[in-house]
Amino acid sequence: MAKASQLGQLPSNSQEVVSRSLIRSLSRPHASSTPFTRSSRAGHPELLQCRGQQRRCITIDQLDSGRDNRERVVILGSGWAGYGVARRLNPKKFQAVIVSPRSYFVFTPLLASTSVGTLEFRTALEPVRSQRSKVNYFQGWADSVDFKRKTVSIEEAVDDPMQSLAPTGGRHADETKQQREQERNEDVKKGKLFALTYDKLIVSVGCYSQTFGTPGVKEHALFLKDVGDARKIRNRLLACFEAAALPTTSDDMKKTLLNFAIVGGGPTGIEFSAELHDIITEDLAKLYPELIPFHNITNYDVSEKVLPMFDEKLAKYAMDTFKREGISIKTSHHVQELKLGSPQKSRANAEDDHACFTLKVKEEGEVGVGMVVWSTGLMQNPFVAQAMGDVPELPDSDLKSLEIDQGSRSYPWSIKKDAKTGSVITDDRLRVKVVPKGDQEHPEAVLDDVYALGDCAIIEGTAYPATAQVASQKADWIGKRLNKNDLDKAAFSYKNLGVMAYIGNWNGVFQGGDKGPLGNISGRAAWVIWRGAYLTKSVSLRNKILIPTYWLINWLFGRDINRF
Amino acid sequence: MAKASQLGQLPSNSQEVVSRSLIRSLSRPHASSTPFTRSSRAGHPELLQCRGQQRRCITIDQLDSGRDNRERVVILGSGWAGYGVARRLNPKKFQAVIVSPRSYFVFTPLLASTSVGTLEFRTALEPVRSQRSKVNYFQGWADSVDFKRKTVSIEEAVDDPMQSLAPTGGRHADETKQQREQERNEDVKKGKLFALTYDKLIVSVGCYSQTFGTPGVKEHALFLKDVGDARKIRNRLLACFEAAALPTTSDDMKKTLLNFAIVGGGPTGIEFSAELHDIITEDLAKLYPELIPFHNITNYDVSEKVLPMFDEKLAKYAMDTFKREGISIKTSHHVQELKLGSPQKSRANAEDDHACFTLKVKEEGEVGVGMVVWSTGLMQNPFVAQAMGDVPELPDSDLKSLEIDQGSRSYPWSIKKDAKTGSVITDDRLRVKVVPKGDQEHPEAVLDDVYALGDCAIIEGTAYPATAQVASQKADWIGKRLNKNDLDKAAFSYKNLGVMAYIGNWNGVFQGGDKGPLGNISGRAAWVIWRGAYLTKSVSLRNKILIPTYWLINWLFGRDINRF
Repeated sequence: MAKASQLGQLPSNSQEVVSRSLIRSLSRPHASSTPFTRSSRAGHPELLQCRGQQRRCITIDQLDSGRDNRERVVILGSGWAGYGVARRLNPKKFQAVIVSPRSYFVFTPLLASTSVGTLEFRTALEPVRSQRSKVNYFQGWADSVDFKRKTVSIEEAVDDPMQSLAPTGGRHADETKQQREQERNEDVKKGKLFALTYDKLIVSVGCYSQTFGTPGVKEHALFLKDVGDARKIRNRLLACFEAAALPTTSDDMKKTLLNFAIVGGGPTGIEFSAELHDIITEDLAKLYPELIPFHNITNYDVSEKVLPMFDEKLAKYAMDTFKREGISIKTSHHVQELKLGSPQKSRANAEDDHACFTLKVKEEGEVGVGMVVWSTGLMQNPFVAQAMGDVPELPDSDLKSLEIDQGSRSYPWSIKKDAKTGSVITDDRLRVKVVPKGDQEHPEAVLDDVYALGDCAIIEGTAYPATAQVASQKADWIGKRLNKNDLDKAAFSYKNLGVMAYIGNWNGVFQGGDKGPLGNISGRAAWVIWRGAYLTKSVSLRNKILIPTYWLINWLFGRDINRF
Repeated sequence: MAKASQLGQLPSNSQEVVSRSLIRSLSRPHASSTPFTRSSRAGHPELLQCRGQQRRCITIDQLDSGRDNRERVVILGSGWAGYGVARRLNPKKFQAVIVSPRSYFVFTPLLASTSVGTLEFRTALEPVRSQRSKVNYFQGWADSVDFKRKTVSIEEAVDDPMQSLAPTGGRHADETKQQREQERNEDVKKGKLFALTYDKLIVSVGCYSQTFGTPGVKEHALFLKDVGDARKIRNRLLACFEAAALPTTSDDMKKTLLNFAIVGGGPTGIEFSAELHDIITEDLAKLYPELIPFHNITNYDVSEKVLPMFDEKLAKYAMDTFKREGISIKTSHHVQELKLGSPQKSRANAEDDHACFTLKVKEEGEVGVGMVVWSTGLMQNPFVAQAMGDVPELPDSDLKSLEIDQGSRSYPWSIKKDAKTGSVITDDRLRVKVVPKGDQEHPEAVLDDVYALGDCAIIEGTAYPATAQVASQKADWIGKRLNKNDLDKAAFSYKNLGVMAYIGNWNGVFQGGDKGPLGNISGRAAWVIWRGAYLTKSVSLRNKILIPTYWLINWLFGRDINRF
């Protein structure tokens, strides 16, 4: 047992050794059949010392003892892909362990509704831990993977202050490689970094929010990717109205505070614009009637058309509806900067009463805004760039399915990535592909027990969109295949079930998919489909009851405007 | 019009002049019958300059034009007293204007339930602004009162980051008087400080949370006075369990993280202990079964008995119930300090894995805790000490009801305070009492149009407790009197309707009041009364529907454990 002798050994600066030392007390589920017993520890003085400082002895005894010969599937991420796989896996066959900085799953299509109070925040959430799902969970960020030893190192994230907010940049982006290494070593000592072995690994870490490096956006814009973002938007929106209602607020400042800019004309940006219009006209107009003439909603997009996934006619229907509702759509507009303070600040030399922002648009110049909601797409997850790179050695098990000779195992490999997006490339069984490093003559291969799905992965040769629908179908598919152990039977293929968007004032657009009985629908009927579909798809019975309750309550009494 | 000539004039360092200059554009509702017209402004060049910098011209035109000869009642605070009066006032007779840093009313008896998710946070809130109530609202802190000119100066608080949290100390406590004066002047220029005239003033600013200066409590303890506090408690509780569930967390650290201390044996502290016990045994025990042996709930109080307002038998029943439930009650215990980090830190020389705290108790020494909830009573509101002090001149109107001669008006007066608590003393009509400053021979008087109620006020000669029940009854009473204009008819008297507390595991204690049909009740029946009473008393129909919905949903599916 080479592993045992490394226990208690302080990690050196080499990442490889860190990874090894991390394995310490986590018994390898299948590869090592000898459990890591107390008697085996006794021979190692380092270990005894380690037991004195108990917190530094990593113990997943409970996890191990509860395995009962099941394979352990470690799932990185708790979004549509990760949470989907975890729910699908048969707990009698697999021990599912989700590792994610976020302890809940977000039903993202309802986030825009929660951001204005059409629904309460919690109706869009499902806890990863639940009695029903029997999923194990550790709150943390996956830090690195040792594919040879089938081990993930995890950075715990229980007190991460950013945990419910859209990530926009790497957590350790400011650090040099050396600093990060040192920090890693410190974290191991503190117990903040620990290792977990897997039999199968599901990489479903998702993407970050894309800001295209636009100055000030990370700092001042609000996103719409997680429930903390929705909460921030709701509070900010109501604060803008409350500040505009103060007697000292000038008309100029009222216009600025109540000027709401949404950047991004995809379904999220469009649906948020629509929901924002609804709360203002249906609720805030009654509470702040004198302020309504000052308000303004503008949706900016760089491309020539919004809702690009919809056909011309539906997109035009949405645009016409927006025009009637008074929402401006500014396509072919380029946002260049977002900064604190009003544009008037320099002009009138007057001090700002309230926090407001200036949006610099190439085609318009500087515009004073009360809030900017940013929804322009995806940035590759830094984990994919950093941890899903080189594979110095393949694990033993891969020899079976890879038709490569024993010698090839010693080549250094690297994970195949999409040149444009940096996504992990998988085969049509969602297995992560690897290519020999630097040597193009050797054939490509796959990592047998490592699967990638969701926004961070692309099946080679396909162009499925980075949507919840694709992630969800992949999750269902891989879950079923693993349960039945018939991965080789047939390849995954995506069925487009249609796309839909809410466009305000109880109207929607729906575009039928590949085989659906419905074609293109717009207006009230599409809104009914929208609500019906999301109610049906919402996960727990609890939310299936609460969601219509809130729809009814808010229709009867108006949206709740309490801000805290 | 002496006032007009002061318009646009920058305030000097004297608070008196600040107050005057603040009156600027707010037309005095009744005292000055000449409205502040544009033509009268034209003669003043300072004013024209002021109009150029529009934000610095304070305009409450909409408020004034909407008055329709009604008297303006300015209400400071949005708690049981202030919100109660506002709801009660007849909008045909009075223009009610609430000024409060908190834009909602908190139904405080349900806060403990929301802090563990038995109820959703918003079910304990009612927005001050609502179509139904027709109450005007400005989000701000009352800063000072000019009783002669019937003007309150208000510091706006829209972006106050502490707005949903229990206040524990003055916002400007660190500043010298001179610094504060300078800041005030700056705030006037920025429009952050503005003035509002009143015909009647209701002082219902409430109290702050009392920490007795115990080191570390303000910084590290959680309170239970506002919804932001409840939210913090819920997140912290779940974070403690999540951190304890990490594989790197030692058993010692698990014990520390899951050791919950509640300081204060009043109804709030006791009810929170009970709710905490419920969520742990009913919900968290299913999700973290392996952690339950490590948890511990302790209620500390300096006095010899908890629930002092209950009779011996009921208090004993509560204690026995707690003992069965495994909650420790430690009376005659003195908390001396709360600090970050575990007590083991110095002992084992090991670094802490997670944020935890050390509670220093006189009788026990240092105890490692995951969370301290502090609920030990009230501290006088700094506004009462600072702004409710000297009254250099009485307003004209007071001459009528005060049987004092014209000469007495020129005496400097000061507001009568309770020597022990510092509360404002009122007569039995809730009018604020004033005493001649330094000259004991003159009779006491009352400020005719200034009323004080809630936790910051005491009726002379009474010892009513500082409870929601007293505040609420006073609010109802003064509202009715003002509506009927019959303040002289009869004095306010308090009817004790009984006290009750939830003690966990579907049990309660109820002690009948002065005239109620019910005597002392304990157990399940008292729990039914508890739920019934609070459901009946909850304000809006919205919450009357949502509260039982959540009771049912959480009974069926368990409490929601999503943390964000």
